Amino acid sequence: MTHGHERSLDRDTVLCISLAARPSNIGTRFHNYLYDELGLNYVYKAFAPTVIVAAVTGIRGLGIRGAGVSMPYKEDVIELVDVLEPSASAISSVNTIVNDDGLLRAYNTDYQAVADLLADDENDFDTSWPVAVAGSGGMAKAVTAALRDTGFTDVTVVARNPETGQALAGQYGFVHRTELSDASPRLLVNATPVGMAGGPAANDLPFDVAVVDNALGVFDVVAMPAETPLVRAGRARDIPVISGDAVIALQAAAQFTLYTGVTPSPEQIRVASEYSRS
Amino acid sequence: MTHGHERSLDRDTVLCISLAARPSNIGTRFHNYLYDELGLNYVYKAFAPTVIVAAVTGIRGLGIRGAGVSMPYKEDVIELVDVLEPSASAISSVNTIVNDDGLLRAYNTDYQAVADLLADDENDFDTSWPVAVAGSGGMAKAVTAALRDTGFTDVTVVARNPETGQALAGQYGFVHRTELSDASPRLLVNATPVGMAGGPAANDLPFDVAVVDNALGVFDVVAMPAETPLVRAGRARDIPVISGDAVIALQAAAQFTLYTGVTPSPEQIRVASEYSRS
Repeated sequence: MTHGHERSLDRDTVLCISLAARPSNIGTRFHNYLYDELGLNYVYKAFAPTVIVAAVTGIRGLGIRGAGVSMPYKEDVIELVDVLEPSASAISSVNTIVNDDGLLRAYNTDYQAVADLLADDENDFDTSWPVAVAGSGGMAKAVTAALRDTGFTDVTVVARNPETGQALAGQYGFVHRTELSDASPRLLVNATPVGMAGGPAANDLPFDVAVVDNALGVFDVVAMPAETPLVRAGRARDIPVISGDAVIALQAAAQFTLYTGVTPSPEQIRVASEYSRS
Repeated sequence: MTHGHERSLDRDTVLCISLAARPSNIGTRFHNYLYDELGLNYVYKAFAPTVIVAAVTGIRGLGIRGAGVSMPYKEDVIELVDVLEPSASAISSVNTIVNDDGLLRAYNTDYQAVADLLADDENDFDTSWPVAVAGSGGMAKAVTAALRDTGFTDVTVVARNPETGQALAGQYGFVHRTELSDASPRLLVNATPVGMAGGPAANDLPFDVAVVDNALGVFDVVAMPAETPLVRAGRARDIPVISGDAVIALQAAAQFTLYTGVTPSPEQIRVASEYSRS
């Protein structure tokens, strides 16, 4: 049994859950830690559902307050909820369901977190910079939409898969390339699994070193480890860096607020995030 | 927040639940206490479902391991499960659902607990005794069926409601009366809310004092308080007594074993039961 976080339960305890084919422990630890820290009578439990329709029916039937939604259910649940909030409709992808007395509202706090980080003045990113986004999956969608919605206009989607790459770039009026060649983007965003711990490219950069040398900022959505090769390269060059652990902490904090109505302090989010990854 | 019992959760934690219109804290405390005591990575949470069909769908969809079923759902869930085990089919009433990899099996551990207590040699009840059962609701059904199945043959169902009373008595070949008048039963069973803490008849006996004076044994299914007026009257007369807290502990322990495969010791059950009622 994982130790460190402890809770008591009674009949009034509010349940929040996650739905994923392969749940991690991060959400469970993050939310339960903050429930405890803030004295909220909530409990969070991860599920690997067998049938997503039945799982969402269960959210209604049991009065479960909220659900994080992960791969491969982020699009499947769209037709199962009642209200698609702007953060989810922006990218046709749901990562959070909130149950308001039987009315299921869907959000995408990944999109919201990425947009907030891109717009954060502290990160010193300039919307006039040419941007390269590596990847064309779910997180690439969130990133590309957030780039457009925060004012970036010169964006290239770099993806080996021509169908998904073209579709994603086209949807937001951007350009797709299967590789970067001679382009010289100033902001590099990684939305692929490159650099992910335990993956086949854990030690690789998602862009050529020459491209990284030319960059003025980097953004990696890979959260495990927080210090990916791209993040390390950005820090070594002393340029502004956003790392994936910031995205995951911010999106989890947004879920937390949606479920509980309580906004944790930045320091509480930082500690919960560190605890959740330990 | 209720204190005393604490748990840690991770992605592998197994969830068991209860479904009731008005959940008490007893089951939540009993099961979570024993999970902790026995080092099982389980957690128990009570729900007041809105739609029972959706709730049972949720048991399947989320892979919830087990569910206690209380008023008013004990009959509604019959058509929602896959297998009706003998304890449930005996009285057409379900108080426990076990999810075996998507196959829902239904049991009635109330019936089983009452039958086990009636058959327990320590209680010194004689199957040749004339019996009076007060009540014609769900627990009266469990008691009447258990009386028949443990060998009692002379049973009178005492119930003011002529329809439910007659139906219950008729189903098991017993007699129904709206009141006892001159009968002289030796075993008195209370399956009504008379004597229940906070109820309108908290201080009353379910039978006349003259009838109690003539009894050789009493059995009260009311669990709160454990010491009902009938239990107190039996103990004052120094005759064998079974109290409702024994039923509730035994049925909860049976649920516990069905959910976990682990059989707690009698001492562990006693302590968990005491804790659950504190």
